[in-house]
Amino acid sequence: MGEEVGFVLYKPRLADNVGGVARALVNFGFSRLAIADPATWHFDPRSAVKAEHVLEKAYMALTLDEAIGPYAWVCGTTSRKIRRRPAISPRELGEEAARRMAAGASICVVLGSENHGLTDEDLERCDAICRIDTSLEQPSINLAQAAAILAYELRQGLKLPRPPRELAVAATREEVDRLVASTREALLGAGFLNPQQPDKILGELRRLLVRGEPTKREVELLTAAAKQVQRTVVPTPRRSE
Amino acid sequence: MGEEVGFVLYKPRLADNVGGVARALVNFGFSRLAIADPATWHFDPRSAVKAEHVLEKAYMALTLDEAIGPYAWVCGTTSRKIRRRPAISPRELGEEAARRMAAGASICVVLGSENHGLTDEDLERCDAICRIDTSLEQPSINLAQAAAILAYELRQGLKLPRPPRELAVAATREEVDRLVASTREALLGAGFLNPQQPDKILGELRRLLVRGEPTKREVELLTAAAKQVQRTVVPTPRRSE
Repeated sequence: MGEEVGFVLYKPRLADNVGGVARALVNFGFSRLAIADPATWHFDPRSAVKAEHVLEKAYMALTLDEAIGPYAWVCGTTSRKIRRRPAISPRELGEEAARRMAAGASICVVLGSENHGLTDEDLERCDAICRIDTSLEQPSINLAQAAAILAYELRQGLKLPRPPRELAVAATREEVDRLVASTREALLGAGFLNPQQPDKILGELRRLLVRGEPTKREVELLTAAAKQVQRTVVPTPRRSE
Repeated sequence: MGEEVGFVLYKPRLADNVGGVARALVNFGFSRLAIADPATWHFDPRSAVKAEHVLEKAYMALTLDEAIGPYAWVCGTTSRKIRRRPAISPRELGEEAARRMAAGASICVVLGSENHGLTDEDLERCDAICRIDTSLEQPSINLAQAAAILAYELRQGLKLPRPPRELAVAATREEVDRLVASTREALLGAGFLNPQQPDKILGELRRLLVRGEPTKREVELLTAAAKQVQRTVVPTPRRSE
């Protein structure tokens, strides 16, 4: 099981932690790891006990977007409370991931660097946020321990009985990105978006779209529609606010 | 919360892991740690980020029994399947611990050494066994990561609504030990136990007793009864089998 679940480490700093994450993945039946923009490229396989193969075949990405591109649903993790974005618990992550996978989606979990975690901007790139409830005294969980808890809950979720897999294939992140880019151009052209700050509204539209779990075909249709709008809109002055 | 939950590390070998366990305890609101018969007494507080106080006040025990003595209910952990003893999951451990604590019991979780975990003999000293379900490929979880998962589930369990605390005080391990010792003498005296191997049957009786969640008073009564039997039995030849 678990081939459709990936973990992304964004800007990890300590090779030991990377090895510890790899071990936890294998403990719970996962093996797909991407490492984006790490502080070191020298990972000691000794920390990845019986998980050396995960490190060896880990996908090395330069950016967060490159690492998460292949997945349909991306859940970022944080120990902070994020304004206006409700966070799910690890248990809910396990259940939600299992449900989406049953519907044909691949999913990934993103963990940030040891010192600061994911920034608000990084979390904007994620379709959902998972927060591990901790004590106020020490809210920050070690990276490899956080990964162990998340992998454990993902495994629990995947053990639940699932409805039969539907035929529709979920759109990947990259396909949704292309749709959002086309929509940006179309809505900028139509004078709907503020050219100085188009991404806030686009981010909201994107999250709405992802909540609807769009198929590949639906995203292709919408992308074609956005492109058609792009070609046909007559530039108009933006409505004043 | 959590003052009635303790963690026991039995024969840990790596100071980093001990620090990692301490950090995970504080992450999830716990702080009672006992370290029994470790390979090193030099723990680097740097690995116990914001949990240095847990290491500093950790109870240093020479034996497993000394470390678990103060608790009413002791759950050992293992990645192995143990013959004839069903294991509970971490989630069940969280729920069971919360239920027993609501009834006034203190509980502790024992983790074994990094290389072999707890032996069958160590697990015999535990009232229950918890097994974290892992993949066959790499069943062995890093000590600090296993502690993180267990502390996480204990916190989840303690967040569940609980019935009001009952007035009866649960017997501690040490009190149960004294009862078992008196029972051993009484049943050996009565010719019921095989003097060559009394502890197998006693272990079963003990587990039955602990399942019943005895109060201090009940254990005192039974101990007095066993002592009275000791004094009054006339040695008889053991029944042949």
